[in-house]
Amino acid sequence: MEKVKLFGTWSCPFAKRIVWALKLKNIEYEMIYEDLANKSPELLKYNPIHKKIPILVHNEIPLCESLVIVEYIDETWKDVYPFLPKDPLDRAKERFWAKFGDEQILSSFFNYFMKQGKDQEEAKEKTLTNLKRIEQLLSENKFLSGERFGYLDLTFGWLADNLRPLEIVTGLKLLDEDSFPNICAWKDEILSIPSIQECWPNQEALIAKYQETKERKGK
Amino acid sequence: MEKVKLFGTWSCPFAKRIVWALKLKNIEYEMIYEDLANKSPELLKYNPIHKKIPILVHNEIPLCESLVIVEYIDETWKDVYPFLPKDPLDRAKERFWAKFGDEQILSSFFNYFMKQGKDQEEAKEKTLTNLKRIEQLLSENKFLSGERFGYLDLTFGWLADNLRPLEIVTGLKLLDEDSFPNICAWKDEILSIPSIQECWPNQEALIAKYQETKERKGK
Repeated sequence: MEKVKLFGTWSCPFAKRIVWALKLKNIEYEMIYEDLANKSPELLKYNPIHKKIPILVHNEIPLCESLVIVEYIDETWKDVYPFLPKDPLDRAKERFWAKFGDEQILSSFFNYFMKQGKDQEEAKEKTLTNLKRIEQLLSENKFLSGERFGYLDLTFGWLADNLRPLEIVTGLKLLDEDSFPNICAWKDEILSIPSIQECWPNQEALIAKYQETKERKGK
Repeated sequence: MEKVKLFGTWSCPFAKRIVWALKLKNIEYEMIYEDLANKSPELLKYNPIHKKIPILVHNEIPLCESLVIVEYIDETWKDVYPFLPKDPLDRAKERFWAKFGDEQILSSFFNYFMKQGKDQEEAKEKTLTNLKRIEQLLSENKFLSGERFGYLDLTFGWLADNLRPLEIVTGLKLLDEDSFPNICAWKDEILSIPSIQECWPNQEALIAKYQETKERKGK
C-alpha cells in the first residue's frame, strides 16, 4: 500500500505546488505541518542537507526540492493526469521557465510587497520585466503548459494565490488587467479546476498572515 | 536531417557537460566558440533572456540552461546511451544532487582557488563539507550514477577536469586521496571512458588559462 506524507506549511509556495500536484493526481497523503521556528526531528532526519520543507516521504523514502518532487510524482503516478507533455522540446521549455520563475521572479515578487524604498523599486522593476515574459507565454494558450493546466502552471501557482492577498495588505498594485490581461485571466482560469479549487489557500488567512508580517517589519 | 549546433567556450563547465552528452550519444554537432567579452548576434538572438552560454540549437530551435539541455538530449536521442535511469526514485535522486552540485558546490569550488583570505577560507569549508556528501555517494558505486557513467556524472564533470589544473596553478591541495579516495578514483575512472577521453579538456590549456586569471587578479 502506498504511504505518502508531505512535510510543509500551509502557506509555503514550494509546499503548495506539491499539494496541488498530489490533488491533481488524486493521491491520498498525510499532511504534516511544520513549525519552521522549531523544526521537527522528522524534518531534520528526512532533509539533513537543506533542513527545509517541502519534503515528500513516499513509503518511508524522503524526496526534497519541490521541482524534483513534482517530476517524481509525475513519473511515479504517470497514468493519472500527466503534468509534463511528451515531446522533449515542450518538456525542455516547461523546465526552462519553471527554473526561470523560481530563480528570477519568485523572490523579487515577494520583495516588491515586503521591502521598502530602493529595494522595493528594484524588485518591482525586475518582477515586471520578467512577468512580461510570462504574459507573453500566455498569449497563445490559456495555461502556461498550453491548453491544459500542467507542470509549468503548477510551478507558478504561488503567483496565482498570493497576488491578491499581497495587493490587499500592502495597498500596492503589481499587475493591472490592461498591462497583464493574460496573467489576470490565467489566475481566474486556474480556479475553475476542481482539484485546485479544493485546496486553494484560504485568501483571508493569507491576508492575515501578510498583515502580521507587514506589522512585524514596520516595528 | 538533424542539425545540431552548440554555442559555448572551450572551458565553460556548463558547456563542457553538453559536449560530453553529445559525444556519449554520438551526435554530430557544430561547435560555435563564443567570445564572452564580445557576444555574437546569434548568442543574443538565441538566448535573449540570460544572454549566456551554453545554447544548444537543434534544427534552428534554441535551448538554454545546461541541465535542461542534458535532459533534452537524453529524451530526444533516447535509444543511445541513456543518461538518466528509468526508476522515478533514482531519477529524482540524480536531479536532486545535480541541482545541489550546481547551487552549493560549483561556485565555492572555484572561489576556493581564486579568492583570497576570508573568502577563500569560507569557500574551502563549504566546498569540503559538500564534497564529503559526494564522497559518500560514491561509497557504493564507482560512478555517481551507479555502475555506469550517467546524468549525475555528466553534471559533475567540472570537478573532474578542473581539479588538477587549479591545484597546480595555485599550489593548493583541495582533495587528498586519504580523505577523498572515492572522488579521486572516480576522477580517474571517468577518463577510462573513450567518448570522454576524446573530448577531455586539454589540461595544459586549462593550466595556462587559470595561470593567466591568477596573474590578472594579482595585479
